[in-house]
Amino acid sequence: MTGDAPPEPFPARRRPDAGIVAAVVDALRAHFGPRLSTGHALREQHASTLTWVPSQPPDAVVFPHDTDEVRNVVKLCAEHGVPVIPFGTGSSLEGHVNAPYGGISVDLSAMNRILAVHPEDLDVVVQAGVTRKMLNEHLRDQGLFFPIDPGADASLGGMAATRASGTNAVRYGTMRDAVLALTAVLPNGDVVRTAQRARKSSAGYDLTRLLVGSEGTLGIITELTLRLSGIPEAIAAGLCPFPSIEAACDATILTIQSGLPIARIELLDEVQVRACNAYSRLALPETPLLLVEFHGSDASVREQSERFGEIADEHGGGPFRWATEAKERTRLWQARHDAYWAAMSLRPGAKAISTDVCVPISRLAECVQAAKRDILESGLVAPIVGHVGDGNFHCLLLVDPDLPEEVARATGFIDRVVGHALALEGTCSGEHGIGQKKMRYMAEEHAPATLALMRSLKRAIDPRGIMNPGKLLDL
Amino acid sequence: MTGDAPPEPFPARRRPDAGIVAAVVDALRAHFGPRLSTGHALREQHASTLTWVPSQPPDAVVFPHDTDEVRNVVKLCAEHGVPVIPFGTGSSLEGHVNAPYGGISVDLSAMNRILAVHPEDLDVVVQAGVTRKMLNEHLRDQGLFFPIDPGADASLGGMAATRASGTNAVRYGTMRDAVLALTAVLPNGDVVRTAQRARKSSAGYDLTRLLVGSEGTLGIITELTLRLSGIPEAIAAGLCPFPSIEAACDATILTIQSGLPIARIELLDEVQVRACNAYSRLALPETPLLLVEFHGSDASVREQSERFGEIADEHGGGPFRWATEAKERTRLWQARHDAYWAAMSLRPGAKAISTDVCVPISRLAECVQAAKRDILESGLVAPIVGHVGDGNFHCLLLVDPDLPEEVARATGFIDRVVGHALALEGTCSGEHGIGQKKMRYMAEEHAPATLALMRSLKRAIDPRGIMNPGKLLDL
Repeated sequence: MTGDAPPEPFPARRRPDAGIVAAVVDALRAHFGPRLSTGHALREQHASTLTWVPSQPPDAVVFPHDTDEVRNVVKLCAEHGVPVIPFGTGSSLEGHVNAPYGGISVDLSAMNRILAVHPEDLDVVVQAGVTRKMLNEHLRDQGLFFPIDPGADASLGGMAATRASGTNAVRYGTMRDAVLALTAVLPNGDVVRTAQRARKSSAGYDLTRLLVGSEGTLGIITELTLRLSGIPEAIAAGLCPFPSIEAACDATILTIQSGLPIARIELLDEVQVRACNAYSRLALPETPLLLVEFHGSDASVREQSERFGEIADEHGGGPFRWATEAKERTRLWQARHDAYWAAMSLRPGAKAISTDVCVPISRLAECVQAAKRDILESGLVAPIVGHVGDGNFHCLLLVDPDLPEEVARATGFIDRVVGHALALEGTCSGEHGIGQKKMRYMAEEHAPATLALMRSLKRAIDPRGIMNPGKLLDL
Repeated sequence: MTGDAPPEPFPARRRPDAGIVAAVVDALRAHFGPRLSTGHALREQHASTLTWVPSQPPDAVVFPHDTDEVRNVVKLCAEHGVPVIPFGTGSSLEGHVNAPYGGISVDLSAMNRILAVHPEDLDVVVQAGVTRKMLNEHLRDQGLFFPIDPGADASLGGMAATRASGTNAVRYGTMRDAVLALTAVLPNGDVVRTAQRARKSSAGYDLTRLLVGSEGTLGIITELTLRLSGIPEAIAAGLCPFPSIEAACDATILTIQSGLPIARIELLDEVQVRACNAYSRLALPETPLLLVEFHGSDASVREQSERFGEIADEHGGGPFRWATEAKERTRLWQARHDAYWAAMSLRPGAKAISTDVCVPISRLAECVQAAKRDILESGLVAPIVGHVGDGNFHCLLLVDPDLPEEVARATGFIDRVVGHALALEGTCSGEHGIGQKKMRYMAEEHAPATLALMRSLKRAIDPRGIMNPGKLLDL
């Protein structure tokens, strides 16, 4: 990378010769023994799993134990031009873990050690395969928690690689904010530690943020230093129906403008509420609904809840119900927790395609309403949930992947939602990332000069194009 | 940048031929007329101003009005290999605006238009020359404010370029967090817009964060989209003496761990308090002091203040005085507002050298105390102030720059403070940046592979090395 020899023609967008791959797999087997597998089922499982993207399995899967082992895999693959595909838990949604040119899937699940907890500094050092639930389990006794919650029990390395966020982001930020420092193996086999453990720094380029969201195309994240939060003294959860999407969004805007430090604010449209009523045997009013959560002291969550109730009332929302007891809170939030399965039950056997766009919050109502009209006109089934405090929402399209006409209709819908979000100064992905499926939108969202800059970074760091090829950027 | 021709040998660490510079200056004058100057005084003023770094003036200073004019300057300079040095207000502290190889200083102060305020989205679009006070003046009527406050009335472009922070960072984050998107002119003359206006995105590499903190070495920031906050309903300020630095730091740690959403928490050591008493005619107890500020509703700032008072008491601090009325708040914080001038008055005629290190908060007391012992043993005068919620502190060394022995003693002290901070998993710069003066510490803080990655980014984006050469990285 830093040598003077000109890089080979970039990118090598083809499968390497079968003989070369076989030699690399043999060399890896000599070191990893049973921790390397070429079995069909395991390879399939390491291709795209949670998405509608057709599977493209890797040639082999390897399970390293530490950064050093990851480095050895990458060095060997780099030497022979064999693709390397980092794998966390496979819960990404846009085809991030597929192997379109074959290669070695590096499964980090055995790298699941929590290396150090620093309660006084509110940070933790983990291996990349630790999942967020494992981490929170480990932290609970110390009164600490890791707030980023994308829904799935994803690995923390994978969450960093896709710049994940979720329901808590409105208060606690996204993985962009949560990562203090990373250790990563670069495509040339170099191991970099991006930063010290200090909470802030102005000492050079922000390599941490360069790797967060790079989707494994610039290197493999092997360790992370993460910011933690204290478990709040009190939590209040609430639920409030609104007469319209617009009213719910306006209430959200005023809540944020007022500086209410809301921890979660989630929108469910009436289709989703209807699905939840059926699935979870609830009796919620079948209108747009906001589910909220407040963190703080007893007095402050009470004050926040009351203030939110007033704001909701000003926008025709209500009755606003809220609770601080754990059991009652769970009951109020049941609809949100079951939203995914409730949506799936609307059409048993269908595959769910989750769109993901994010717009400035003032444009949210407009974008969601246009999406709802389009869903209706397209004859699709697609409940909507949104992290509305961030202007981020998902339509869960329930599609039969065996019906090409239906898939085409769904794809056309996604094209239009993305186009509309971009026209409203939004982005084609708020939190799911680009992977394979959203590469087509990169040139819509970013100007040629911006894409050229991204490509020049990729070329500088991965001149042979071995790191997770066929993702994020057309090269 | 994206062409296939191999770049010229990198970097061109020499002054370009005088004839070439003269030709470039002539060409610029033809376009800019009186907005280009080669006057001695103006060039001196655009070299290092606020620091102890010797001045290295540019060959000319140019005052563009918009991104297009900046692009024209950069393209012309790129064509002829003439250095380009971005200039905001000149308030940086580590020699960022010097021109060691001559070249053109691009003064952005005439790019001072606020392009759009979006109150519902809590964001604003500004040209890079707008200063933070200009912006806050403009926003006041709308109940909004921009929270990052590095002390100086710096330009927002400069603040982004150095990843500035300051007293509010513990609650509102640093420029890393405050910038939603940037427009920048790259060394090849390309204009990039790094992101849309959505609050979060997972659509590609984080070019925003790549440019934030890059100190003008990767491009010139010309426009910024910034996150704003609502002016809090209530503000409470407080002041609390502590028996020791350690007690003050322990109280800070517990405050943060408890999740108190403190807006500011500043440490003054007893030397600084003594200086403030003398300078501002106060009668504060001459012990370590914490100055705090709380933002929220009336009830919540009252609750936060009371809770902080309890925490302070647990650590032997007190009496804790606090106030919510503006006049009384100003009185309580007077010592902090006057800290710089009070420190200067300890040694009239001396130059102030502000160190800047940041450590994990649990190591702060240890690092500050070691610094204080060292100051004493080195016979230096250096009061200490700290943004202790972030683990960041400054020693204000009062030095006669005409006494080489004294400068050497100060330099030796800074070397040791940085070394100690690094040993405690801290950083050589929490917020001032690297510039010229801290380049020597980059190799202490970052491993060779990490520096190699930074260099490869610089080479990819600025192959001829024209952007702010001689800063941030040894190449």
